[in-house]
Amino acid sequence: MQKLNIGLFGFGVVGEGIYKVLEEKPELNASIKKIVIKDKDKFRNAPSELFSTNANDILNDEEINVVVELISDSDAAYTIIKKAFNNKKHVVSANKKLIAENHLELLQLQKENDVSFLYEASVCGSVPIIRNLEEYFDNDLLNYVSGIVNGTTNYILTKMANENDTYQDALKAAQENGFAEADPTADVEGFDAAHKLTIITLHAFGRKIESNDVIRKGITSLKTKDFEYAKEKGFTIKLIANSRIINENGELISTVLPTFVKLDKTIALVNNEYNGVLIGSSLSDEQFLYGKGAGRFPTSSAVLSDISALQYDYQYSIRKKSDKNIIVNKSGKVKVYLGSETEVSGIKDFFEDIEERYQSNSYNHIIGTISIVHLKNQKLLNDERLSLIVFE
Amino acid sequence: MQKLNIGLFGFGVVGEGIYKVLEEKPELNASIKKIVIKDKDKFRNAPSELFSTNANDILNDEEINVVVELISDSDAAYTIIKKAFNNKKHVVSANKKLIAENHLELLQLQKENDVSFLYEASVCGSVPIIRNLEEYFDNDLLNYVSGIVNGTTNYILTKMANENDTYQDALKAAQENGFAEADPTADVEGFDAAHKLTIITLHAFGRKIESNDVIRKGITSLKTKDFEYAKEKGFTIKLIANSRIINENGELISTVLPTFVKLDKTIALVNNEYNGVLIGSSLSDEQFLYGKGAGRFPTSSAVLSDISALQYDYQYSIRKKSDKNIIVNKSGKVKVYLGSETEVSGIKDFFEDIEERYQSNSYNHIIGTISIVHLKNQKLLNDERLSLIVFE
Repeated sequence: MQKLNIGLFGFGVVGEGIYKVLEEKPELNASIKKIVIKDKDKFRNAPSELFSTNANDILNDEEINVVVELISDSDAAYTIIKKAFNNKKHVVSANKKLIAENHLELLQLQKENDVSFLYEASVCGSVPIIRNLEEYFDNDLLNYVSGIVNGTTNYILTKMANENDTYQDALKAAQENGFAEADPTADVEGFDAAHKLTIITLHAFGRKIESNDVIRKGITSLKTKDFEYAKEKGFTIKLIANSRIINENGELISTVLPTFVKLDKTIALVNNEYNGVLIGSSLSDEQFLYGKGAGRFPTSSAVLSDISALQYDYQYSIRKKSDKNIIVNKSGKVKVYLGSETEVSGIKDFFEDIEERYQSNSYNHIIGTISIVHLKNQKLLNDERLSLIVFE
Repeated sequence: MQKLNIGLFGFGVVGEGIYKVLEEKPELNASIKKIVIKDKDKFRNAPSELFSTNANDILNDEEINVVVELISDSDAAYTIIKKAFNNKKHVVSANKKLIAENHLELLQLQKENDVSFLYEASVCGSVPIIRNLEEYFDNDLLNYVSGIVNGTTNYILTKMANENDTYQDALKAAQENGFAEADPTADVEGFDAAHKLTIITLHAFGRKIESNDVIRKGITSLKTKDFEYAKEKGFTIKLIANSRIINENGELISTVLPTFVKLDKTIALVNNEYNGVLIGSSLSDEQFLYGKGAGRFPTSSAVLSDISALQYDYQYSIRKKSDKNIIVNKSGKVKVYLGSETEVSGIKDFFEDIEERYQSNSYNHIIGTISIVHLKNQKLLNDERLSLIVFE
């Protein structure tokens, strides 16, 4: 078991948590040698000689064999990680945006430099989804990975469902309770979930898709009327990230969309800031992994598991990497509900079949089948007047 | 990636399933060279030249590097596995009784012979509980592992809860639907769950406990009145296997007991033949793994994952193995409900405190606190007139 000398970038709540655990647990055989931060003058709960504002104090230190990167700026993180690899250091990161945007390049670089790149904390916090897809479901005939991967939106949707809050009120509560950022765009518009879905998709199916390939709509246009409809029909509404194989050529549908979930389904039990992911395979039926998706302790836990794995030279093996042409969101269809307060012209033309149509003074909805190709239309996805909700 | 030549013991539904998958998936780089069965004359869905009734046709074949053992007789399995190790063959097994009874010896033998012994299928079928405890939660400060690990009893309890069936009717339905054996003792008395709990406990905490050390009561004495009480109070009743650390010395409480579970808890959603396990740690809060616990496909899936892991020489590392004295079920207390149709004399003396006492013409119950030491009393655990149910 090799001794790990860690260089830490960022000392927010997660960084501090990791520092403390490693101090208290010498048996982990890992300690933090240097911490690079932006603001040298801020008070820190650790000896001042550990801190520096110069990235090279970590990157050029030959004794440091592990870089733990916990900064929010993904451009800066990219530069740090590349240099760390070139200097033969292992990297642990929680930066899903960075990973989603540079996944194959970073995996290639770790390989060329014979170091490890681990990032369990980037998807669903403490829930060991990547490790399970990578190591356990590697021979299995996976059909889909589907679930709630963003705690902020799930907290908001839970409040809307259980307390009849409007989106704005629920967002405000989430911000007051530390579950949403001042600028919540990345979460509420589904960008964060789309990044995570591309990471999941690579480890599940060996297919690298871009975040922009994911058909994505966030939760900002959902109305209390949509939740009333859901309740009447025995559903709740969740923001579901879903990648599934739709035919023998391995064609994929990858979406991040508000989804009606039957109340008796496992995923309906995932409430508040929790995350939960279903793994469907032809052999083992359906597996479900559930836990806290974000926050100090869950993220620290995932980072520590990665650090621990480095002690036995663990590396994702990406055995499922396929060199087939990856076809994503090119065919298939889904059942969709479109709700709106006022009638929106032209939307019925998107449907192949209309199953149900409801009009009243206060609310309208149409339910029917839309082909995946039409679902990508920006009018459908971006019109803030429209609540777009798919059926599982 | 080494080529795996497999010798298979047993050709029931799981064995046949594995044979088929390996035939259909040459990319798994594993094939079955010989199958040893008891009855040579029975019709088998595979070429007859594969079959033998002589164990040595596998054990002495130097080309066979993996033994997959899927027979029910645990004494015969023990002999087979020991000989396989001595002949430097890896072993994959699903035999929880055998493993629970010989765990440390078999782990030692695999080590001495530098081969792997994998047994994910022995606990919760396709749910990758061992691999997660072993690899992912290895640095984490685990507090408890708790859950539903037996599909037969969970199927029966689900029917009793949802359909107001008596135990006898629910057992009959389970037998008719293939979820319970003709002699259901191992399942309904909790022996199977206790074996699994000892395997889980070793991988979770590094502590080897014996199945007999587990405080165990099955589900055979539960009455419809107990389920009525549960419903009134917002509970359901589940057979929960639970190992938890109760103090800084690492003292354990390990129990398999009928348990009141609040209906809004995750574990209450685990119904029918499904299994679900909670992993509690001070860092990551609570993780939940869920899936099918038994049956052809889930068991095949777990066995295939183990076979696949052998291709990269995977071995459980048992990093958490502790040489501390293991103290199990020596202190602590639990809140207990004791129900009975007629008054059973002397039972109130087991309680430290009585919280609630109910008596009527048709049913009586007492709720209160019982120390772990008293809970081990055979009168409490074995009196068939008594429904003993603990509170989470």
